[in-house]
Amino acid sequence: MIRTTCGPTPSPDTGQHCPIAALSHFPQPHYTIVPQTTIADVFAAVQSGSVSQGVVPFENSSNGSVIFTLDLFADLAGRNPDILVCGEVYLGVHHCLLGRSKDAPEGQDAGTGRTTAEDVSGSPSPAKSRGKPLRDLGHITKLYSHHQAWGQCNDFLTTYFKGVERIDVSSTSKAAEIVQQDDSGCSAAISSRMAGELNGLEFLAENLEDNEGNSTRFLVLRRRRDDGTARPDGSAGAADGEAETDDEHARYKTLVSFTVRHSEPGDLAGCLAVFQKFGLNLTSINSRPSNEATWHYIFFVEIMGRKRHDGSGAVNQALKGLDGVAQSCRWLGSWENALEA
Amino acid sequence: MIRTTCGPTPSPDTGQHCPIAALSHFPQPHYTIVPQTTIADVFAAVQSGSVSQGVVPFENSSNGSVIFTLDLFADLAGRNPDILVCGEVYLGVHHCLLGRSKDAPEGQDAGTGRTTAEDVSGSPSPAKSRGKPLRDLGHITKLYSHHQAWGQCNDFLTTYFKGVERIDVSSTSKAAEIVQQDDSGCSAAISSRMAGELNGLEFLAENLEDNEGNSTRFLVLRRRRDDGTARPDGSAGAADGEAETDDEHARYKTLVSFTVRHSEPGDLAGCLAVFQKFGLNLTSINSRPSNEATWHYIFFVEIMGRKRHDGSGAVNQALKGLDGVAQSCRWLGSWENALEA
Repeated sequence: MIRTTCGPTPSPDTGQHCPIAALSHFPQPHYTIVPQTTIADVFAAVQSGSVSQGVVPFENSSNGSVIFTLDLFADLAGRNPDILVCGEVYLGVHHCLLGRSKDAPEGQDAGTGRTTAEDVSGSPSPAKSRGKPLRDLGHITKLYSHHQAWGQCNDFLTTYFKGVERIDVSSTSKAAEIVQQDDSGCSAAISSRMAGELNGLEFLAENLEDNEGNSTRFLVLRRRRDDGTARPDGSAGAADGEAETDDEHARYKTLVSFTVRHSEPGDLAGCLAVFQKFGLNLTSINSRPSNEATWHYIFFVEIMGRKRHDGSGAVNQALKGLDGVAQSCRWLGSWENALEA
Repeated sequence: MIRTTCGPTPSPDTGQHCPIAALSHFPQPHYTIVPQTTIADVFAAVQSGSVSQGVVPFENSSNGSVIFTLDLFADLAGRNPDILVCGEVYLGVHHCLLGRSKDAPEGQDAGTGRTTAEDVSGSPSPAKSRGKPLRDLGHITKLYSHHQAWGQCNDFLTTYFKGVERIDVSSTSKAAEIVQQDDSGCSAAISSRMAGELNGLEFLAENLEDNEGNSTRFLVLRRRRDDGTARPDGSAGAADGEAETDDEHARYKTLVSFTVRHSEPGDLAGCLAVFQKFGLNLTSINSRPSNEATWHYIFFVEIMGRKRHDGSGAVNQALKGLDGVAQSCRWLGSWENALEA
């Protein structure tokens, strides 16, 4: 679910299916959904202006950051200079094991397969796994899924599929398609309920994710406007010019990337101190290789608050301060906090 | 190369082959090498005391942190409470494309395959890739490697294998074994020179890595001693009790993990400020989901300097300070900086 990405264009047309429920953010009568194959394709579509907004996975609550997205924000090749984040969407993620059962029990509903058979796999420690088999799994010798899904279903895989071959494919929906075409019946996919229904596969197990609250955060991208802003439609928030309030800080988030001078590793602390100086709450930090030099990094910091268009406010001051300390820095957007909404 | 890991025990025995050149750190007459299948197995072997030291991959210069290792340091299940880092080893990583050529040219040396044929693949943009084909690659329809290797060879893969199926296996040496057993000749592995030679595969391309300086940092682990220290044999460094010098700070590194109170996101800045207060250079920061609550993180900070056994010194003071600000924190070891050596 988290790797098929889309860029929607505003239009009265609709009807094109997109597997990302994150697009519920974009009411269909007003947007046309333009599915893209990779996260890089979404960035490229937004940068080129062929779509007005894009949706990309940013982090999963169990499995951490989506490094492909971070690397596209790092933009070392200079391909996405005008990309800004203008929103976020949180979505619960539920993985299913899709395939074919070996000996179909009576009354089986091949489309959904939700019978009540329980733990017939003779697992050594099923208690550890949230997901329980609905069918015998002994004939499954090959699993297909997206890389991120393995990490989210670790308990289930360790309990029921230790040592079984795992094949990484480009998306969980692609995994379901491959399994649908395998007549041997010995392969299974970790994928979404929707992919199971679309491909007519049986549900061999459900809720495979380790954590009940397993969810993925998506970011909404748009192209920088001529005035340098990326204010999303309909989320103007507090008017510029008014004094900042604690409420305003809690209502918005801002993403910033920066690098420090290679010869001055102490600069990292100096850069982070800037945010503290202006009373800004850091909510996350990530680092990726900058590829500028070996063991040199680009840092991504998320803070509460927003950059104001009139230049006033703590985030604006911190960005100015950072500019004086960091080797390079870039504001990657401010948007409404969807978690508190 | 970076995922086959080993835990060596001191012994006069030797002779067991281990594919990690990182073990050059452990001169063979003095150590027995005990290969392990996964990074978790290395942690378990060191924790249980069945080996005296372990070697695990920590980060790659192109592809970033090894999240499996970070998660084992996070130790959310409480399985590795006594693991400490006591050293580091940097190793250059060179990937080869191993397989079988379609039409073996005259004079081909099947064992090494290093002929001088150049870029016969008709690639759309070979200039972008450092690695150039030594043989025709048109018959290769399936690639095997470890997940980390794809990220390190992105330019080569984009140039010559766009759209070709990639199968993720547990290690690059495992990838070479699988390709060796595939009689169709249509599969290839991204793996090491040594794996190619051991499996009698041809070198279809060399130096596939995007960056010439592509290298991996390994950490050396040992079990906490009864006195709480992890000073490695033969690296005692500056004597405790003496005043700290800049040289001492540059000679050592320290790894610390911490979590912040979920209700107080501002604590992250407070925790990081502690290191600055004591003049400690932060050299890297990583974060991973803590799994304690959704969107709660554990942070990993690397600083220059070392924890002194006598309790004096800036790192000791910072650890005390952190203890008062963080929700939880853990010293994960101090060791000699191998990059400056």
